[in-house]
Amino acid sequence: MQSWLKSAANSDFSIHNLPFGIFSTADLNPRAGIAIGDQIVDLCEMAQQGYFADMGFDSWVVNQETLNRFIGLGKRTTNAVRLRVQEWLCDEASPLAKHATGLVPMSQAKMHLPVRIGDYTDFYSSIEHATNVGMMFRDPENALLPNWKHIPVGYHGRASSIIPSGMPIHRPKGQVLPKGETQPVYQPSARLDFELEMAFIIGKENELGEAVGTADAEEYIFGMVLFNDWSARDIQKWEYVPLGPFLGKNFASSVSPWIVTMEALAPFRVAGPKQEPAVLPYLEYEGEHNYDINLSVIIETPDGTENVVSRSNYKYMYWNMLQQLAHHSVNGCNMRIGDMLASGTISGKDESSYGSMLELAWAGSKPLTMEDGSTRKFIHDNDTVIMRGHAEKDGIRVGFGEVRSKVLGAK
Amino acid sequence: MQSWLKSAANSDFSIHNLPFGIFSTADLNPRAGIAIGDQIVDLCEMAQQGYFADMGFDSWVVNQETLNRFIGLGKRTTNAVRLRVQEWLCDEASPLAKHATGLVPMSQAKMHLPVRIGDYTDFYSSIEHATNVGMMFRDPENALLPNWKHIPVGYHGRASSIIPSGMPIHRPKGQVLPKGETQPVYQPSARLDFELEMAFIIGKENELGEAVGTADAEEYIFGMVLFNDWSARDIQKWEYVPLGPFLGKNFASSVSPWIVTMEALAPFRVAGPKQEPAVLPYLEYEGEHNYDINLSVIIETPDGTENVVSRSNYKYMYWNMLQQLAHHSVNGCNMRIGDMLASGTISGKDESSYGSMLELAWAGSKPLTMEDGSTRKFIHDNDTVIMRGHAEKDGIRVGFGEVRSKVLGAK
Repeated sequence: MQSWLKSAANSDFSIHNLPFGIFSTADLNPRAGIAIGDQIVDLCEMAQQGYFADMGFDSWVVNQETLNRFIGLGKRTTNAVRLRVQEWLCDEASPLAKHATGLVPMSQAKMHLPVRIGDYTDFYSSIEHATNVGMMFRDPENALLPNWKHIPVGYHGRASSIIPSGMPIHRPKGQVLPKGETQPVYQPSARLDFELEMAFIIGKENELGEAVGTADAEEYIFGMVLFNDWSARDIQKWEYVPLGPFLGKNFASSVSPWIVTMEALAPFRVAGPKQEPAVLPYLEYEGEHNYDINLSVIIETPDGTENVVSRSNYKYMYWNMLQQLAHHSVNGCNMRIGDMLASGTISGKDESSYGSMLELAWAGSKPLTMEDGSTRKFIHDNDTVIMRGHAEKDGIRVGFGEVRSKVLGAK
Repeated sequence: MQSWLKSAANSDFSIHNLPFGIFSTADLNPRAGIAIGDQIVDLCEMAQQGYFADMGFDSWVVNQETLNRFIGLGKRTTNAVRLRVQEWLCDEASPLAKHATGLVPMSQAKMHLPVRIGDYTDFYSSIEHATNVGMMFRDPENALLPNWKHIPVGYHGRASSIIPSGMPIHRPKGQVLPKGETQPVYQPSARLDFELEMAFIIGKENELGEAVGTADAEEYIFGMVLFNDWSARDIQKWEYVPLGPFLGKNFASSVSPWIVTMEALAPFRVAGPKQEPAVLPYLEYEGEHNYDINLSVIIETPDGTENVVSRSNYKYMYWNMLQQLAHHSVNGCNMRIGDMLASGTISGKDESSYGSMLELAWAGSKPLTMEDGSTRKFIHDNDTVIMRGHAEKDGIRVGFGEVRSKVLGAK
């Protein structure tokens, strides 16, 4: 399969990908689009021209500031739209090839949050990350807590402060307890960190009181994005016992703008790690449900140099998305379209694959050296943190582009 | 001040209260109303008849399934609406007195969630409750954790499963660790509990990155509701270390349908407890910002008998709403209209004022006896939990009505 659009060939946004997002331009209000190469297929324009008329939805569904309504049409429709666009992009005589306003250059577009997020949940599903954190903060001999291998541990995060790639953040201020002191102080965080994560987006709702089993969970998952779960380690450390992370996290989380569908990711499925001890029956699953997605984290120093500080992979996840969703809903908790469920920091086995500065610089004891000669224990003001992700196999590439955020000084 | 509406006289919904809510009837879609006695003032009807035309908003703002748009008009407008309705209700020649369709009997109305809740936060601000829990679960000698008197501790909860009064819940199922075992089991919760709380609703937004100081916080608080933070203690106990409560809480939280404004509650302000050690400057405040609101919890057994199991008061709160909001936003976390911030369990000093079964029956060691002769360590199937709240002073009564939910067996 090949597109007549040349820029699609070696792109994250290949003819095999076709992720959904929300974009605007100087002339166009926020609306739904599909990424292809360096262009965006304007779904609203194509709908208004009647090219989806047979699919039973009106153009206002794609003329919205979020994809929630569109996703709510169901996978049968959203997949059909994606496949039709794929056909158009392979056929030089298609309406899209002929319709000059159907494609918008990415260079002219501003990307927005793709969905209105009702609730955001963050899991803690990388065994390497949980072990590293346990070794540093608790007991190196018993790094994993007793519940970790029985429960895909998770907690609720803040939805209002999830922001799209490109938006800068300010270093947060808050309470921290200086080492050896008993009185906290109020100051800008001195331990600002990223967390390399991915998140999936809910595409189908369950009623309050109804659990979603692992066998049905795939129907409920629309697609995935890259997720930077910004963390202020010093604020987090002082506040998190007993009710969990709060102000150490909720000042911002950054997401990539294009939702890559589970259908586009299907060729990259791999088996997950063996789970021992055996999980409870409601967490058992059949088939391969991890995904081989290459991930990297880059610190761009103020001089503009990119320093790759981590290369990880989503396939390392101990708990998969089916298990996360089955667990989250086993008590009847209801999911809504657009809800975002993040993986937790994705660390691999060796030091070069750790997903946070906390682990990479081992709580500040092993600073990283940047190409400009400066060192990093945590993130400095005017650093830009970039995360990229893509899957590749048999000449097929499906990527996420990037999530990028610059850190500005405390206000 | 007295209303011509007789049922207003000894009601929670007196002429001094006039709370806002969303109601529907057989003939009317969900819309905004104000409670008075046993009636509802139909704000949509009165707006459509032009009686708010001078206030600069269209009737569609009150013809919505939630109050978010209306609250978004700002306190200047919402207060003016409330005061105009108050005038009408005191004047037998007013448009409302003459306009037959302006009042709808509560008996014919169904109440809905008053707001669309973007984010829900639960605090832990009663020192009596935090001490009781610390004594039971951690160390009786050091019941309060080191951060408790420095931070209004809080965590993010689930917004999707917040339900209006009257909606039953099912006993949740989940993982619990039987005493003395190392392998968890999956079963219906055997320790289903209520938590007596109140919540306030955000009425004004701050930008991401901008903190709200205690001196400005009142502008951001629209009003309050009663809040039952359902808790499955056995699920919670096994899951909550290290990231906090999750499935032990997110199966449901019930709220009362009428938002009592801060203006209606102003006469009931009292001083809060002295805070020692002194709080950090960003948590200091001036004036009296606790509220004397009588609260009670009733277990209605299956035979229909009401058993009052707790009498508490919101005035016991160690941390007040200004401090909660200032802390929540000190790192730049943005609030959105309709966000709900709950107090945490409101326990008083003596046993009869504890706000949860966990404390009332002291982790099951002191079962409560109901009037029908049965006993309760926690909540049984087919029990109905009712919470009521009202303030009263100098003949003025301002109440919340109730939040009521029946517990059905596990599905």
